Amino acid sequence: MSYTLAVSPLLMPMLSDKDAVQLCSADAELAAILKFEIELAYAQEAAGVVPIGTAKAVAVACAHVELSGPEFEAALATDGVVVPAIVAALKTAVGPAVAHHVHAQATSQDAVDTAFMMRAAAVVAFIRQHIAASHETLLQLDTKFGARSLMGRTRMQRALAITVADRLNAWQQGLAAADAALEHLHFPLQLSGAVGTQDNHAVKTHMAAALELSVLSHTWQTNRAPMLAIGNACAGLTGALGKVGADIALMAQNELAEITLRGGGASSAMPHKQNPVKAEMLVALARYNASLLSALHNAAVHEQERSGAAWTLEWLVLPQMLCATAGAGRLCHDLLACVESIGQ
Amino acid sequence: MSYTLAVSPLLMPMLSDKDAVQLCSADAELAAILKFEIELAYAQEAAGVVPIGTAKAVAVACAHVELSGPEFEAALATDGVVVPAIVAALKTAVGPAVAHHVHAQATSQDAVDTAFMMRAAAVVAFIRQHIAASHETLLQLDTKFGARSLMGRTRMQRALAITVADRLNAWQQGLAAADAALEHLHFPLQLSGAVGTQDNHAVKTHMAAALELSVLSHTWQTNRAPMLAIGNACAGLTGALGKVGADIALMAQNELAEITLRGGGASSAMPHKQNPVKAEMLVALARYNASLLSALHNAAVHEQERSGAAWTLEWLVLPQMLCATAGAGRLCHDLLACVESIGQ
Amino acid sequence: MSYTLAVSPLLMPMLSDKDAVQLCSADAELAAILKFEIELAYAQEAAGVVPIGTAKAVAVACAHVELSGPEFEAALATDGVVVPAIVAALKTAVGPAVAHHVHAQATSQDAVDTAFMMRAAAVVAFIRQHIAASHETLLQLDTKFGARSLMGRTRMQRALAITVADRLNAWQQGLAAADAALEHLHFPLQLSGAVGTQDNHAVKTHMAAALELSVLSHTWQTNRAPMLAIGNACAGLTGALGKVGADIALMAQNELAEITLRGGGASSAMPHKQNPVKAEMLVALARYNASLLSALHNAAVHEQERSGAAWTLEWLVLPQMLCATAGAGRLCHDLLACVESIGQ
Amino acid sequence: MSYTLAVSPLLMPMLSDKDAVQLCSADAELAAILKFEIELAYAQEAAGVVPIGTAKAVAVACAHVELSGPEFEAALATDGVVVPAIVAALKTAVGPAVAHHVHAQATSQDAVDTAFMMRAAAVVAFIRQHIAASHETLLQLDTKFGARSLMGRTRMQRALAITVADRLNAWQQGLAAADAALEHLHFPLQLSGAVGTQDNHAVKTHMAAALELSVLSHTWQTNRAPMLAIGNACAGLTGALGKVGADIALMAQNELAEITLRGGGASSAMPHKQNPVKAEMLVALARYNASLLSALHNAAVHEQERSGAAWTLEWLVLPQMLCATAGAGRLCHDLLACVESIGQ
Repeated sequence: MSYTLAVSPLLMPMLSDKDAVQLCSADAELAAILKFEIELAYAQEAAGVVPIGTAKAVAVACAHVELSGPEFEAALATDGVVVPAIVAALKTAVGPAVAHHVHAQATSQDAVDTAFMMRAAAVVAFIRQHIAASHETLLQLDTKFGARSLMGRTRMQRALAITVADRLNAWQQGLAAADAALEHLHFPLQLSGAVGTQDNHAVKTHMAAALELSVLSHTWQTNRAPMLAIGNACAGLTGALGKVGADIALMAQNELAEITLRGGGASSAMPHKQNPVKAEMLVALARYNASLLSALHNAAVHEQERSGAAWTLEWLVLPQMLCATAGAGRLCHDLLACVESIGQ
Repeated sequence: MSYTLAVSPLLMPMLSDKDAVQLCSADAELAAILKFEIELAYAQEAAGVVPIGTAKAVAVACAHVELSGPEFEAALATDGVVVPAIVAALKTAVGPAVAHHVHAQATSQDAVDTAFMMRAAAVVAFIRQHIAASHETLLQLDTKFGARSLMGRTRMQRALAITVADRLNAWQQGLAAADAALEHLHFPLQLSGAVGTQDNHAVKTHMAAALELSVLSHTWQTNRAPMLAIGNACAGLTGALGKVGADIALMAQNELAEITLRGGGASSAMPHKQNPVKAEMLVALARYNASLLSALHNAAVHEQERSGAAWTLEWLVLPQMLCATAGAGRLCHDLLACVESIGQ
Repeated sequence: MSYTLAVSPLLMPMLSDKDAVQLCSADAELAAILKFEIELAYAQEAAGVVPIGTAKAVAVACAHVELSGPEFEAALATDGVVVPAIVAALKTAVGPAVAHHVHAQATSQDAVDTAFMMRAAAVVAFIRQHIAASHETLLQLDTKFGARSLMGRTRMQRALAITVADRLNAWQQGLAAADAALEHLHFPLQLSGAVGTQDNHAVKTHMAAALELSVLSHTWQTNRAPMLAIGNACAGLTGALGKVGADIALMAQNELAEITLRGGGASSAMPHKQNPVKAEMLVALARYNASLLSALHNAAVHEQERSGAAWTLEWLVLPQMLCATAGAGRLCHDLLACVESIGQ
Repeated sequence: MSYTLAVSPLLMPMLSDKDAVQLCSADAELAAILKFEIELAYAQEAAGVVPIGTAKAVAVACAHVELSGPEFEAALATDGVVVPAIVAALKTAVGPAVAHHVHAQATSQDAVDTAFMMRAAAVVAFIRQHIAASHETLLQLDTKFGARSLMGRTRMQRALAITVADRLNAWQQGLAAADAALEHLHFPLQLSGAVGTQDNHAVKTHMAAALELSVLSHTWQTNRAPMLAIGNACAGLTGALGKVGADIALMAQNELAEITLRGGGASSAMPHKQNPVKAEMLVALARYNASLLSALHNAAVHEQERSGAAWTLEWLVLPQMLCATAGAGRLCHDLLACVESIGQ
């Protein structure tokens, strides 16, 4: 399979995060959709919606189905969503007797939204690990340098002396508030059928347990609040990390010299320089997510029972926001780990 | 006093909300800042920080202080924030013996952030009243028309028949999710002094109770999570209302005729037309807030102990978001109240 | 008339510009629409579309028409655009014989778009005066301080020494590029009728000359390129001015002391401070316009022959961008005029 | 070399464009930077800045240099820009005698900005080919269906009858205006040295000719007007194409049936449906670019002689905008080519 047409700037490994990018890849999306189809069949077996044996047949088909090639790509391009081509392939694979039990009562959006939530939950867990690591490093910096003096600065001017602990504490509070928002996110199963009216509580509960997702009492096919909450929380974190980056870039100015960093970046013209590259990247990622968030909120205007335009916009934005946020989380920890000294 | 230099497009009364606009006006901001100074003095009296009698003197001064004129405006323009000029005027008014107890231990940001939260809480209460009114009207529409048939549409194409209740329910779920976010907002007091390090729990608790605000354990002078939460919740609601507007504009198309509205707008060239003006405005306000939200998240990159640039950006954005959201809330209710018939 | 429901933060006089705000006011919009109706009638008289005497009757009616009161406001709220109510009032005023010649062949969008362009042209002229003033001041600063040394800084680190002239030149280049974009703007007349298909070249040419607007060969009722160009140019200038502001705020840091400013802002808690308020405001306005620009480009998706949603969004955004840009232009000149010294 | 960590949603091949993505890939960027170094050396030879033979040595080194591996990636991550690692590799390859002539007088930004412009010019040429193809198809549609009647619609309501030619013409005008903006773009060479003060007109002229770029009289290292112009033009086109997409999705509604499309997308739950997938994608890409444009304008606030934060933000945004625009250009042509009938 080869869906590698994505823009891949040289610095993507820096600005993003390997684990997050893997979870947001085309391969991971296909795998998650297949898992959706398998667990749907198991849950529907348990509820008596499809005959016993269906799930096993679907699982076997999923293990062998070939989701690539020109025909597959053409179907994808025509349908604007991958699920019809997958379902068609699975139906062929399981044979005519089982075919009509595959993807029963479900629609493309059920599979795609659920497959996204499965992976979003995993990315958010990674992001929270990065925050925890930064938290740990901030505690260590506080132990080492917290009692030192630092000039408090407001509106870019010297104000009153504070301690290093005060500044570290401000960073920590920002991270903690953003982490709390991430912690309170819920990642619901979507399973509402062609026009959002299908409801089978038993199937949903069984399936959500298997996929470690939550269950909402109503369809959220057009109520994108769960998606917005993820985007809001991502932008909340990159904003808080952008503040850390902006502060460190200012502290690292030669005349202020309030911080010493190991491993600053080189310049092609001035070998003597030590650039606070990671700090600057944190600022860039904060502003990037802030703009993507406006696109995500535009995608909340989701007309009728399903908006192809709004949904496509969501796909363009939310995986990127997760990756940028995971990247910023990792960068912040890397940056804090490079601090050799703060204050005096 | 005359701070009427604001852009005032003709349709502002439609696109905004009288109560919200009043609460976001310059006069309301000045009044809230004066209230901050009075309650600060009362709380500091109770905690023994300032002598008994200070608060009364400040209150008397606030009742008579003249906050206008060229000198006042010049100070405002120079300082970039109104508090220094207010404090100077109050100090003069209370006389030299009390002057140094005015605004004790506080800084401009304490007054401005708190004065904003006092009014934001009030605007959000108005917004939630509009949501409750829409909810009520949706229930009535459901009683009258819920059992009727409506064509479910996905990707702008006829899909499967649903009921009017299904569509109304989708709107209701969107409003409920947005309302829950508004309900969970907290509006904290800011009181942290010149560089965010001042902490006097007794004063904060006393003052927050008087102003009906919450208390955070730490300063949030540079951790703008409470501001972002308000903006996120506003955009969340206008997005949900934009979905209602987009749906109604589509339903009102002549060939679909899925909805009949009373009082559509006239055209200057085609008197026969009935334009779904309020529905379109809901879409416009959703996209407006979505863009403003990106500015608000950019303002989260708040360098050092206070960023004049980020803070100013917040001022440009957040009052407007509150007014646009209140306007959309009212418009939605007005629009739903104009529905004469849905479905068939 | 009282359309003062607009949000009016205390600092609006600082962040905006008196002349621009006046031109973007409701009163100015009404006056421009009346002028449109008068010049339309004169041009149609000249082309023989309406009888001689129509224009005079319209002009007399415009001089006396009362565009206010609850009835007028109710019509405005219902129609979502002011023109139908104005036209109705004018038709009544001119009497039955002339009534059907008022606003002949025109539609609301013709009047509103044209009335906007009339005022946008005037605001842009003011903006360019502010740029010219800044240019003049930059030349004076160059004469006084250009030969001095300044540390060139890249990625927030000392790089190589430059001269003050180099830095001033970078600012000047940014202003010049933005000014060129403003200079090349065109402000077209809109006159295309109910569904954009009306074309009367003679009337358009005559009218455009009277209103000092340009003529496009085709309708631009749904092709919003002229609006986007204005927004792009505004954001281009505020971005260039934001760079000046960011530089000055950095230069004014106490430890760098690369610039000395007269009249920095006071702090309510720290009287010793001199805050680079205007520099910070320039940064805030740059980011504000950047976000508004995304809303404006969203408004380019203008469905069918006229989109009420997209058009309303444009109204919410573009007047503000003009005012923010004029404000930034004035602020930059004010800020540069406060420079007492640069470099060493 | 493997820089495949980019997010690659399944639909990227649809939403983007193969040629544009290839030109925005890491490999293409590396190749363009190597070409910059070679042509710099040739131009400097011609101007006598470096000895004859330097360019040949650089060219040979470029042909064989290995730009990959953990060491290279580590340098990239540390420096935050790829040029120092490339220059170091080239210096090693050419040997000590030539090493100090490699990348002489240039800085990383010269190489990166120029390498971007080389590829942006090529992507814009592809985009304009897509526009020309759409233009051609619009002419054919006009020949076939132009005389047919179509209901003109304003504010989502039937207004007055127009012809199919009128609607096609509106689309064509939008494309033409956007194409004109793309045509007038210039793609300048960047060559200004470590702090933007290096100027060697002869070298610049020679090099620009070789790379088919334009020459600006001044450095644009911090004056990002050329970058903004590209972003503005991209968003201008996707906005115009989004209007086409929005119209077609509305026209394709079953009850309106104003257009018949070949090859609409399938639904996994409703095989009878024909979804206007490409039309919806055009709307999504318009809104996507609109939001990215706000990030790009935020990146115009480029502090001092080089802002790592602003520059990184530009990298995150502008290649994507080019790819999204090229994708929209191709999609529009594909969509128009699927039109079987319009109007009646």
